[in-house]
Amino acid sequence: MGSQSDWETMKNAADTLDALDIAYDARIVSAHRTVDRLINFARGARDEGFKVIIAGAGGAAHLPGMTAAMTPLPVFGVPVQSKALSGQDSLLSIVQMPAGIPVGTLAIGRAGAINAALLAAAVLALSDPDLADRLDDWREQQSAAVAEHPVDQA
Amino acid sequence: MGSQSDWETMKNAADTLDALDIAYDARIVSAHRTVDRLINFARGARDEGFKVIIAGAGGAAHLPGMTAAMTPLPVFGVPVQSKALSGQDSLLSIVQMPAGIPVGTLAIGRAGAINAALLAAAVLALSDPDLADRLDDWREQQSAAVAEHPVDQA
Amino acid sequence: MGSQSDWETMKNAADTLDALDIAYDARIVSAHRTVDRLINFARGARDEGFKVIIAGAGGAAHLPGMTAAMTPLPVFGVPVQSKALSGQDSLLSIVQMPAGIPVGTLAIGRAGAINAALLAAAVLALSDPDLADRLDDWREQQSAAVAEHPVDQA
Amino acid sequence: MGSQSDWETMKNAADTLDALDIAYDARIVSAHRTVDRLINFARGARDEGFKVIIAGAGGAAHLPGMTAAMTPLPVFGVPVQSKALSGQDSLLSIVQMPAGIPVGTLAIGRAGAINAALLAAAVLALSDPDLADRLDDWREQQSAAVAEHPVDQA
Amino acid sequence: MGSQSDWETMKNAADTLDALDIAYDARIVSAHRTVDRLINFARGARDEGFKVIIAGAGGAAHLPGMTAAMTPLPVFGVPVQSKALSGQDSLLSIVQMPAGIPVGTLAIGRAGAINAALLAAAVLALSDPDLADRLDDWREQQSAAVAEHPVDQA
Amino acid sequence: MGSQSDWETMKNAADTLDALDIAYDARIVSAHRTVDRLINFARGARDEGFKVIIAGAGGAAHLPGMTAAMTPLPVFGVPVQSKALSGQDSLLSIVQMPAGIPVGTLAIGRAGAINAALLAAAVLALSDPDLADRLDDWREQQSAAVAEHPVDQA
Amino acid sequence: MGSQSDWETMKNAADTLDALDIAYDARIVSAHRTVDRLINFARGARDEGFKVIIAGAGGAAHLPGMTAAMTPLPVFGVPVQSKALSGQDSLLSIVQMPAGIPVGTLAIGRAGAINAALLAAAVLALSDPDLADRLDDWREQQSAAVAEHPVDQA
Amino acid sequence: MGSQSDWETMKNAADTLDALDIAYDARIVSAHRTVDRLINFARGARDEGFKVIIAGAGGAAHLPGMTAAMTPLPVFGVPVQSKALSGQDSLLSIVQMPAGIPVGTLAIGRAGAINAALLAAAVLALSDPDLADRLDDWREQQSAAVAEHPVDQA
Repeated sequence: MGSQSDWETMKNAADTLDALDIAYDARIVSAHRTVDRLINFARGARDEGFKVIIAGAGGAAHLPGMTAAMTPLPVFGVPVQSKALSGQDSLLSIVQMPAGIPVGTLAIGRAGAINAALLAAAVLALSDPDLADRLDDWREQQSAAVAEHPVDQA
Repeated sequence: MGSQSDWETMKNAADTLDALDIAYDARIVSAHRTVDRLINFARGARDEGFKVIIAGAGGAAHLPGMTAAMTPLPVFGVPVQSKALSGQDSLLSIVQMPAGIPVGTLAIGRAGAINAALLAAAVLALSDPDLADRLDDWREQQSAAVAEHPVDQA
Repeated sequence: MGSQSDWETMKNAADTLDALDIAYDARIVSAHRTVDRLINFARGARDEGFKVIIAGAGGAAHLPGMTAAMTPLPVFGVPVQSKALSGQDSLLSIVQMPAGIPVGTLAIGRAGAINAALLAAAVLALSDPDLADRLDDWREQQSAAVAEHPVDQA
Repeated sequence: MGSQSDWETMKNAADTLDALDIAYDARIVSAHRTVDRLINFARGARDEGFKVIIAGAGGAAHLPGMTAAMTPLPVFGVPVQSKALSGQDSLLSIVQMPAGIPVGTLAIGRAGAINAALLAAAVLALSDPDLADRLDDWREQQSAAVAEHPVDQA
Repeated sequence: MGSQSDWETMKNAADTLDALDIAYDARIVSAHRTVDRLINFARGARDEGFKVIIAGAGGAAHLPGMTAAMTPLPVFGVPVQSKALSGQDSLLSIVQMPAGIPVGTLAIGRAGAINAALLAAAVLALSDPDLADRLDDWREQQSAAVAEHPVDQA
Repeated sequence: MGSQSDWETMKNAADTLDALDIAYDARIVSAHRTVDRLINFARGARDEGFKVIIAGAGGAAHLPGMTAAMTPLPVFGVPVQSKALSGQDSLLSIVQMPAGIPVGTLAIGRAGAINAALLAAAVLALSDPDLADRLDDWREQQSAAVAEHPVDQA
Repeated sequence: MGSQSDWETMKNAADTLDALDIAYDARIVSAHRTVDRLINFARGARDEGFKVIIAGAGGAAHLPGMTAAMTPLPVFGVPVQSKALSGQDSLLSIVQMPAGIPVGTLAIGRAGAINAALLAAAVLALSDPDLADRLDDWREQQSAAVAEHPVDQA
Repeated sequence: MGSQSDWETMKNAADTLDALDIAYDARIVSAHRTVDRLINFARGARDEGFKVIIAGAGGAAHLPGMTAAMTPLPVFGVPVQSKALSGQDSLLSIVQMPAGIPVGTLAIGRAGAINAALLAAAVLALSDPDLADRLDDWREQQSAAVAEHPVDQA
């Protein structure tokens, strides 16, 4: 993610990966303030053994796109909700990539962070039958947890 | 894709898959007008042997999200440029999925269609070294094709 | 409605139906997390005796449109105010339906929920003179309740 | 509709009503330029025997909401695509009605006009079994008309 | 104004008129819930002796435009900040009037209410030299009240 | 107006003033490129005998607001439709004036230009009974010109 | 800046200039309420010895553009976050300047204020090697301050 | 600039620099497709003798911000008008930079390209009296070229 302040959002991705028993490494890589770190990470990610990269950033969010420019791995982007524009700037900065360098973009904020983890899980499950089973279970439990009727809040 | 009219956009995804020598099946599945087809396709996709689903749709674009609701496979969504709102409605209808059901969303229109194919390739390349090589080549050629200086158009 | 969290908004529809003495059934049906429930409900609604369906959802709000795709009954959609985009995503996801499958869309949030109930009442009143009278009374009382001059709040 | 210029859009509603064999009367009623006509029409519509009103207008589109303020009949609004803002102004002016006076709003432009007719048909079909059958047929034909695979345009 | 809830905003117009010693009458006239009141007021306003009408409303804000449709007097509209869309709907519903019926629109919220009063004053001052002097004084005092340098808030 | 290119839009204001037999002077005053001209014009306008100022501009449209800052006369602003943002920038730059300096803003483009002239006429008619009669006639003719039923275009 | 209320935002620019040991003068100049002050300041700025002007304003933010119209010095604009539209109006009013009069525009709010100071520093550093060194140090410290891994907040 | 297709826009910057007799080098540097080129250019720009960098890009426009992240030189960004979103995505991707790395952003499209050149000229003129004279002349000629009255187009 781009900064410590994004962790409140991106922690939801980490928690979801934990729930699915998927190993991950959470790092702060600022596309603007730590360019070297970005270059080293993105260029070395495949050789380091990463399979999928989840990148969250806000405002003029360049981290997901720049990472995707420097790795052939699938990159999923999470637009963090920004202060003035509520993440509309983050969303457009991430999703409107030019032809040639894709970023699979999720929803703004917490839902997007959770879903980035689930999408990464779906990708990894293609070659990991155990994870596929765990993901199927997770989805079934999610469905089962939806109540039939609404309840008034106290 | 949701309708024949989306083919002008989505053909760019097909062409890119062709360029990378990736097999695919292009179908018209309307989330609203052919619900049975949608249900049958989405629920059976994994067993049919599909690995990744690319879904393009415009306006109140429900196809990608509803497909993702009915398959554990990764789903990538392409917002087709709509007439009145230029794809802003398509984009929000696809990307703003609630937590639990992810759709990896690409850019509006042609760029998004090409990138959906490239992202699918990146996913498939994780377990297909030959494809990984072809994708690396494709990316290198793309970089090499960028001229150093602009040229005035005749 | 799509989730328990929508009940705060949709309860306004229920309260308005109560005020007009119209019977209804409030259910949670998630287009994404409980697809079976959606299919069963929407396809069986006419035979179960429903006349009008009010569907409220937020974000990439697919519930109203998917319900309309599976029933010939009139469907009215209420865009629930979403966190990041204040319901702009909900509104566009509901109202911008393609030709062929209509959703009559109301305002974002509480006003829309109340009005969905009133619109359902107007539809039902076409073949229920007693309800037509009750609706006329409700509208007259509403008009009479508007003060002539503003009052400073304490 | 609000002006002759809206007819290009609203004619799609008329054609759809024709296809479903539903009688209608197409009138130009400008909320701003022909207020008397609006008042007379809206207040007398129920007694004239109208069951449902479809109102299309563009820009600061007040016709649907003002009609709804003067009749207990269900009113469906069609936002006509405006020149500068592509119907975003029309959409918000129609759909964001305050609690108390509902307008069931359809999509911007042609799709919305067709769907307004279909929604009116769904309402009328509640007490007209023959129309219900015709509407079911129309929907089935629509589904059947969706090709399985896209075709390159010549 | 359209409802009691608009008074918090519109009171700023009243206070500004008070400061300029301009007589006014503050009324609640809902375009949707009290159509008769609107018609009677707007049609009779010139004969009642009104010179300028300030109309504030929110959401699908039809009051200013409908008033302008029924009176030849100048009408100034104030978009009240709405809950979901922060007054963007109010602004477009008021300002995007079709050719033929003008509404002079001010800023969203408090600033717009104050400025509607100042614009009304400017209009009335054209034929009231004393008011012109008071308005000139008000403007001079406003300019003089701007400090040269910012001050840190305690 | 701010530039020659705005004349295509603003000519509609001039034509409307002609139709109402109101004298006017059409000048190009660029807030940015001819600041001296702006200052001289705005500060001298009242003494030159102007009663109302109509200012049209596009993009970061500062002309109406800066004129209003330098004259006590009523200023009406017309947002000219801009190339990239269709006049949304022009509209917000004109209408969102801070408290203290009002600009009565009309619709984007041609409709706004016509309405600026009509609003100016309404203001001048307050102290010119002949003009009031002409304006009443104009409005009546406008109403009478609205056909009862739409006509298919050849 | 345009008013005392902008100081909360613009103080971030002042603090950043302090951190870089750059002399500055913070003044309140309202484009609308203190036109004389604006004219005197902007026209005299170069002769007074100013090198760069940072102008912050909100809403219909005319200060940066009008200043740029009256000085050949580089002008950097900071859109202050406005109440109703979160600074979208401020941003468009500042950045969408017509060809001929440039304003280098920064982000909405606090980030933009800090960056305006940094951009001014970059400009001044072109002819001030000591400042160039201080700016390089500042940037290096900023990079070094980014932690490698996120930390849960207590 | 980011691609050959941006040259149509950015050529306006080049032409303006030519008119002011300022030397420049026009290069295509794609932030996404030619990352090495970007890194080499941005990191070496100061040592190569560049003083100011103008970067134009469209869509998810990362070039200006990434360049600014790798050079202490002032960077001015030009949002190129994109196909679907008319440059709204380009604008937000460029201007909404986080605190620490500034990009002075100009208007969308041609006006922005011209103004980027003028702003660069203003910066360079601070230490180049001859250029300052040329820029003053250019501005005076621009002012003198504004006609007093509009002319009907043939």
